[in-house]
Amino acid sequence: MVGAGFMAQFHLRALLGVRNVVVAGVVSATAPRREAFAAQANQDGLGPCTAFPSLAAMLASDAIDAIWIASPNHTRLAAMREIHAARAAGETSVFAVACEKPLARTLSEAREMLRLAEDAGLLHGYLENQLFSTAVQRGRDIVWRRAVPNSGRPYLARATEEHSGPHEPWFWDGERQGGGVLSDMMCHSVEVARFLLTKPGESRESMTLVSANATVSTLKWKRPVYAAQLRDRTGGEIDYATRPAEDFARGLLTLRDPDGNEAVIEATTSWAYVGPGLRITLEVLGPEYTMEFNSLSTGLKVFLSREVTGRAGEDLVEKQNAEQGLMPVLDDEPGIYGYTLENRHFVDAFRARRLPDETFADGVAVVEMLMALYRSAELGRTISLPDPELETYVPPVARPRPV
Amino acid sequence: MVGAGFMAQFHLRALLGVRNVVVAGVVSATAPRREAFAAQANQDGLGPCTAFPSLAAMLASDAIDAIWIASPNHTRLAAMREIHAARAAGETSVFAVACEKPLARTLSEAREMLRLAEDAGLLHGYLENQLFSTAVQRGRDIVWRRAVPNSGRPYLARATEEHSGPHEPWFWDGERQGGGVLSDMMCHSVEVARFLLTKPGESRESMTLVSANATVSTLKWKRPVYAAQLRDRTGGEIDYATRPAEDFARGLLTLRDPDGNEAVIEATTSWAYVGPGLRITLEVLGPEYTMEFNSLSTGLKVFLSREVTGRAGEDLVEKQNAEQGLMPVLDDEPGIYGYTLENRHFVDAFRARRLPDETFADGVAVVEMLMALYRSAELGRTISLPDPELETYVPPVARPRPV
Amino acid sequence: MVGAGFMAQFHLRALLGVRNVVVAGVVSATAPRREAFAAQANQDGLGPCTAFPSLAAMLASDAIDAIWIASPNHTRLAAMREIHAARAAGETSVFAVACEKPLARTLSEAREMLRLAEDAGLLHGYLENQLFSTAVQRGRDIVWRRAVPNSGRPYLARATEEHSGPHEPWFWDGERQGGGVLSDMMCHSVEVARFLLTKPGESRESMTLVSANATVSTLKWKRPVYAAQLRDRTGGEIDYATRPAEDFARGLLTLRDPDGNEAVIEATTSWAYVGPGLRITLEVLGPEYTMEFNSLSTGLKVFLSREVTGRAGEDLVEKQNAEQGLMPVLDDEPGIYGYTLENRHFVDAFRARRLPDETFADGVAVVEMLMALYRSAELGRTISLPDPELETYVPPVARPRPV
Amino acid sequence: MVGAGFMAQFHLRALLGVRNVVVAGVVSATAPRREAFAAQANQDGLGPCTAFPSLAAMLASDAIDAIWIASPNHTRLAAMREIHAARAAGETSVFAVACEKPLARTLSEAREMLRLAEDAGLLHGYLENQLFSTAVQRGRDIVWRRAVPNSGRPYLARATEEHSGPHEPWFWDGERQGGGVLSDMMCHSVEVARFLLTKPGESRESMTLVSANATVSTLKWKRPVYAAQLRDRTGGEIDYATRPAEDFARGLLTLRDPDGNEAVIEATTSWAYVGPGLRITLEVLGPEYTMEFNSLSTGLKVFLSREVTGRAGEDLVEKQNAEQGLMPVLDDEPGIYGYTLENRHFVDAFRARRLPDETFADGVAVVEMLMALYRSAELGRTISLPDPELETYVPPVARPRPV
Repeated sequence: MVGAGFMAQFHLRALLGVRNVVVAGVVSATAPRREAFAAQANQDGLGPCTAFPSLAAMLASDAIDAIWIASPNHTRLAAMREIHAARAAGETSVFAVACEKPLARTLSEAREMLRLAEDAGLLHGYLENQLFSTAVQRGRDIVWRRAVPNSGRPYLARATEEHSGPHEPWFWDGERQGGGVLSDMMCHSVEVARFLLTKPGESRESMTLVSANATVSTLKWKRPVYAAQLRDRTGGEIDYATRPAEDFARGLLTLRDPDGNEAVIEATTSWAYVGPGLRITLEVLGPEYTMEFNSLSTGLKVFLSREVTGRAGEDLVEKQNAEQGLMPVLDDEPGIYGYTLENRHFVDAFRARRLPDETFADGVAVVEMLMALYRSAELGRTISLPDPELETYVPPVARPRPV
Repeated sequence: MVGAGFMAQFHLRALLGVRNVVVAGVVSATAPRREAFAAQANQDGLGPCTAFPSLAAMLASDAIDAIWIASPNHTRLAAMREIHAARAAGETSVFAVACEKPLARTLSEAREMLRLAEDAGLLHGYLENQLFSTAVQRGRDIVWRRAVPNSGRPYLARATEEHSGPHEPWFWDGERQGGGVLSDMMCHSVEVARFLLTKPGESRESMTLVSANATVSTLKWKRPVYAAQLRDRTGGEIDYATRPAEDFARGLLTLRDPDGNEAVIEATTSWAYVGPGLRITLEVLGPEYTMEFNSLSTGLKVFLSREVTGRAGEDLVEKQNAEQGLMPVLDDEPGIYGYTLENRHFVDAFRARRLPDETFADGVAVVEMLMALYRSAELGRTISLPDPELETYVPPVARPRPV
Repeated sequence: MVGAGFMAQFHLRALLGVRNVVVAGVVSATAPRREAFAAQANQDGLGPCTAFPSLAAMLASDAIDAIWIASPNHTRLAAMREIHAARAAGETSVFAVACEKPLARTLSEAREMLRLAEDAGLLHGYLENQLFSTAVQRGRDIVWRRAVPNSGRPYLARATEEHSGPHEPWFWDGERQGGGVLSDMMCHSVEVARFLLTKPGESRESMTLVSANATVSTLKWKRPVYAAQLRDRTGGEIDYATRPAEDFARGLLTLRDPDGNEAVIEATTSWAYVGPGLRITLEVLGPEYTMEFNSLSTGLKVFLSREVTGRAGEDLVEKQNAEQGLMPVLDDEPGIYGYTLENRHFVDAFRARRLPDETFADGVAVVEMLMALYRSAELGRTISLPDPELETYVPPVARPRPV
Repeated sequence: MVGAGFMAQFHLRALLGVRNVVVAGVVSATAPRREAFAAQANQDGLGPCTAFPSLAAMLASDAIDAIWIASPNHTRLAAMREIHAARAAGETSVFAVACEKPLARTLSEAREMLRLAEDAGLLHGYLENQLFSTAVQRGRDIVWRRAVPNSGRPYLARATEEHSGPHEPWFWDGERQGGGVLSDMMCHSVEVARFLLTKPGESRESMTLVSANATVSTLKWKRPVYAAQLRDRTGGEIDYATRPAEDFARGLLTLRDPDGNEAVIEATTSWAYVGPGLRITLEVLGPEYTMEFNSLSTGLKVFLSREVTGRAGEDLVEKQNAEQGLMPVLDDEPGIYGYTLENRHFVDAFRARRLPDETFADGVAVVEMLMALYRSAELGRTISLPDPELETYVPPVARPRPV
C-alpha cells in the first residue's frame, strides 16, 4: 500500500471482507502514520504488515506481489516511475499495480502511467470504486437482465457526488490535485455512468463518445467567510479568495450506442453540498425503466433531539454535517461505496494473473473525458470528440501560477 | 375558464379548496367537453357555471369578473386579443386575466401578451403553479427564516420535472407548442428555482441573470418503435421519425445576487422518464443548509402483487406507468403541485383589485430565459444575458417547416 | 367554535380551504384567547366572527347554525347539556353539533352525549380527523377499488400515533382527560383502522368486534428527571412520580368480516416517542396488497448543519424535537391530518341537513373499544366483546383519587 | 455445513466476505443437493469442499474443525446427539458447533442442546443473524455511545419480520417446525430487540424478563383459496383448512433494566405480509432519541413499467411479490441480514478457541421467551416470568395430532 491516509484506511476496512490477501507492507512519508497503519493491519488480522520507510524498500522486499497506489494525485506518476524502474532492473517481486482515481492530472500524464505499466510488463488496474458499489453491481444486473431485453438500451445515466469539501490541503490546490471538484469527483461520476450505459460483456469502445459540455463555478468557498475558514484550516496554505478552484461542476457527455442511438451522461459534483454527508446519486433511464440510487436514502436512521449534545464527528456518515435531528446512517460504507467488491475483484484477478475489469487504459479514457469537460467549461462551448487539443491540455486552475 | 382540458380540470379540483369564487363560465371549442366541464362545476358546488359557445359570448355575459386562459399555447395570444378588444370596446365586465404557463411561445409573443393586458387596463397574473406548491411555500419560508440569516444566501437551486410524455398531440408539435420539453416544462423549473433563490419580499430584479447554457436531445421518441407508437396514438399527426422535438433538456443559468455572489439554477426536464409517474424534484443549497423536495417521495404508498391485475390508469399519480409493485400515491395532487394555493392567491388578489405576485411581466421574463436556453443549445455555447437576439428568436423546432 | 386552543386553531387553518362556511363565533373561558381567535378568523376572511363570553351567549345569538365542540375532554358533556337545554327551550338557531374526539371519557358519558343530541333533534357529527386525511381517503379508495376485488378483503389494519407528549396540563391528568395516551390517541388509531377495514358503503356494523387485548406502560414520564420536568412545566399541577398515566399503549382488536374471516386491528400510541415530531403510521394488509402511510416520510425535507442555531419551535412539524440535521417538513398539516376534508364534509352535510358520515354513534362505538382495551390492560387478559361490564367502566387512572 | 438448503446457501454467499475459513464439507440427505453445494463452494474459492453422504462420515473425516447446523428444526437435536456421541468416542476433530435459530422447538429440547454441547466440551454458538446485521451493529453503537449517556437507557425496542410465507413444506408444519410464524420468525425479533436494549458489554441477565403477552391469528392461509394454493404447492402435505398454524403473531415482553426502569419489547411477525418482499423493521426508543431501520427502505430501487414483462423471481429482494412498479433492491442481502458479520465473528471466535458472543445459552433464553408468548396467546392472558410451566410446554400447533 502506497499511502496511509483516508483512501488507504478505506481499503483496510474493505479488506476485512476479502479472502486470500495479506496487507504485507505500507509506505508513507510520515513515519507515525505508516507505523499506525501497519499496526492496524496487524491487529485486524490482515498482516503481517511491515511499515517501509520508502517505496524503494518495499519494492526490494520479497513479500509484495502487488502495489496499491493510494497517495496524493501529484505523487502517483513518480511512484509509478519507481515501480517501473525496479521492474526493469529485476529488483522487485511485484507483478501488479493498482492505482486510485483519477489515474493522473492530465491526459499526457495518464498516457505515461499506462505506458510505464505496459512497458514494465505489469498487470495494472484502475481503482474506480463506484463501479464495484454493491448497489451498482445489483442494479446494473437487474436493468440489463430484466428491462433492456424487453424495451431497448438505456439512453441516460446520471451520476452525482457531492459533499462539503475534502479534508487534506492538497485536494484544494489546483496544481497538486489537477483541478477542483471536477477532477476530484467527476472522475467517479462519468465512469460509473459510462459503465451503467455499457452492456455487460461489451467493451467500453462499444459506446462512442461524441461531445462534452460543462460549466464550473466557485459557489461557496470564495465567499469571504469561507475563504478565511479554509485559510485557517490549512494553515494559510490554501487561499480561495485569490486562487480558487471550482467547488461546483456540471458536465454532460453525449455518446452513440452500438444501435446508433444517442445516449447521455449527466454528471454533477460539488464541494458545496451541506447535507447530512457525502451524497452519491445514480440513475439509469431507458424506454420502460429507471434504476435509481441515493447513498443517503438509508434503511438505518437515528434521531437525536436538541437535548443530545455531542462532538462533531464522521461516525454516522462520511463528511457528516450535523449530530442532531434525523440523520441517515450508512450501515456498510466500504461495501456501498464499492471498496469491498473492488478489492475482492482486484485480488482475484491478480492472483489469477489476469488484468482486472478496469485497467489503466480505462483510467486514461476517464482523464480524456475530464479534460474535454474542463476545456468545454473554459471555452464556454461544447467540445466534439475526439479532440487532439486534449493531449496537452491542462485545466486553468491546474496551470502553474505565474511567478 | 378558457379551455376545458387537463389543465382546466386541475383548476376545477383545486377550486374546491378556494373560498369566495364561482366558476361562472367555460368556453371550449368542443361542445361536449365544455358541457361536461360546466356540469362538473355545478355538481361540485362551484357554479352556477354556463358553458359558452365562444369567448365572445362569455365576455359579453355580465357574470364574469376574471378569465383563466388554460387553452393550448398557440391559442393564447388570440384569446388575449379578443379580451383586449372587448375591454377596449367597453363590452365586458371582465377586469382581470390569468394565463397558464408558458405565457407565450416566443419573446415577441410574450411581450405582446403583456402589452395587451396593460393597454386594456386589466389586472394580469401568470399562472406558475409550482411557486404555490405547498412544499415550495413551506420550504422557502423555513430556509429564508431559519438558515439564510445564519450563514448567507443560497447559491444553487435545482429543479427538474420529468414524465413519460404529454397526452394531447399539440404538446408534441414544435410549432403549435413552441418547442419540445424545454418550453413545455422547463418554464416551471427555471421560474421556481429563481423564486427559491430570491429573498422573500425582494423583486425578481434583485437577482441579475448573467448567462445561460443548455443542451437538448431526443432520446426516446425518435427510436423507431416509439416514433411509430406516437404516430399511432396521434392518428398520424405527429411523426418524430422525421420531425422530432427534444424530449430531454438540461439548462443552467447563472445569476448574480444582491451581495455580488454567483448563484446557479440547474434545471432538467424530460419526456423520457419512465418512473412511477410525474416526478418533480427541487433543491436549494446554501453554505450550511439544503432544502429538498421530491414529489414521488410520498408518505402514502400502495403495493399490489403480481396477482393484482387491473387497467392502466392515472389514479395513483399523474402520468402513471405501472399498476403493480410498490407505487407512490400523491395524497393531494392539486395541493402539492400548487394549484390550490395558486388559485387562492389569485382570487384574493383580484377580489382586492391587486396584481397577484406573479404577473405577465414574470411570464415575459420566463420566456426570455427559455429563449436563451434554446439559443445556447442551438449554438453549442453559453449565451450572455441580456442578448438582443432573443427578441426575435424562435427555437429551431418551432420554426415553420419549409413547404 | 367552542374552544380556542390548539384544536380550534387547527380547524381555523383548515377552514381556509372550505367554501360556504363562516366562522361566526367563538367562546372560550379566557377573554384574550377568544378575542385573538376571533381577530384571526376575521383577518383570514373567515368571519365576521364574534368572541362570545359564554356558550349561552353564543347559543342565543342568531348567527350560528352549527357548533364545533373543541374544548377539553372534561368540559364537553357540560357544553352538550347546555346546547340541549337551549334547543329544548327553543332559544337557539343552532341545528347541528360536531364534537372533537374522543366523544367522552367513559361509555356512559358517551351514551349521554348521543342521547342529548338525538333528544334535542340536532344533527350530530363526530370529528375524527384521521378518517379524512388526504392519505386515508386516497389510499382506501385505491385498495378497495384495485386490490380487494382481485384477491379479497383486508385482514389487518395498523395504526400508530406517537409524539413526545401533549402541551396542556389537562391532557396529562387522568381524571380530566379520561386516561393517558390510550384514550388521548388510540381513539384515532382504532377508528381509522376500523374505517380502513370496512368496505366503502358498508356500515360499521358489517365488521363485528370480537375481542380486545391491550397493555399499557409508563416508560418515560415517571423517570425522576422527566417527572420533575413535567412538574415544572405544569406549575406543579401534574406529578407523574406519584400519579402517572400511561405514556405507551398497545392494543389489538379482533373482528369478523361479513365473509366470516378474522380481521385484526393493531394499534400503538405513545407520548414517549422522541423523533422529528408527531408520527402517524397506517397500514392495510390483504392477501395480495399493502397500503402504507407514514406522516414523517415527507417529500419535503430541510437539512440545517450544526452551524445553524435557532430557537426551538414547531415550524417544521407538529411536536418537533430538533432544529438541526435532516428534518421532514409537512407541506400541509391540516390536509394530511384530515382537518381540511373533515371540515369540508361536515359543512356540506350540515348545509344539506344530513348527518355526516361520522356521528355521535360512531363516537360511542370508539369509546366502547377504548374501554375494552383499558379493561384488558387492567386485568391482564383478553376481553370478549360485547362486555356489559364496560357500560360503567372507568379506566384506573381516570378514577377519582381517594381523598 | 449440515444442510444445503436456503439457509446454507445464505451462509455460502456470506462466507465470500470472511477470511481464514474453508468450507470443507457439507452433508445433506439429498445427494444432488449436497453435490451442488460442494461444487458451488469450490467454484467460489471457498473449498476444497467435500459432499459427505452422512454426518457420521463428515465427523469422521479429519478436515473439519467446526460444524454449522442449518438443517430443518426437527432434525437439529438428532444432529447434535450424533456430534456429542462422536466427541465422547473421540472420533472427530470437530471442536465447535454453531446452530441456526431457533435452537429448538421447545424449552426442554433447547436445554438438551446446551447440555449436549457442554457435556461434549464443544465451543457452541447460536446463529442469530440479526444481531450481526450491519444496521444493528452500526445503529446500536451510535445510540449507546451518543445518545444514552446524555439522557438515559432506551425503554422500547421494536422488531418486526414479515413476508408472504416460507418455501419449504416443513416450515408450515407445526409439529416439525415447532409452531407457526411465532416460532419461525419471532425468535429473531425478540432476541434482536433484547440485544438492542442491553448495554454493550453487559450480560443478557442485566435485563430481567418480567412478563409476556401475545396473540396469534391465521389471517390469510386458512382462507379457502389460499389453503388450496398451499395444498397444491406442497403436494397435499400441508392443509391449513384443517390444521393451520398461525401466520400472524404479535408479542410484547416487559423487562426491568439495571436502573429499575421498565423496558418493553414489541414484536410482530407475519407470513401474511404481501409487500415487495421480506421486511424487517427495528426501532429503539429512549428519552431523547430514536433509532430506526427498515430493510425495504433501500437506497437502490428499480422501476419497471407495465410494458416490462418477466418471470417471477427473487432477484430483487428475498420473498419478492412483484416484478413491475417501483421495487426496492437490497444491495447486499447477506450483509444487511447479518450473515457476513455473523460468520466473521463465529470464525474468529472459534479460531481463537473462544465462545462467540451468542451461545446455546442465549438460544435457550430465546426459546423460553417464545414459549412464554405461545402460552400467553393460548391462555388469553399475560404470563409472569419466570414460569415453571414453560419447562414442559409445547405450543398447541406443535402438539402431536391425535391419531
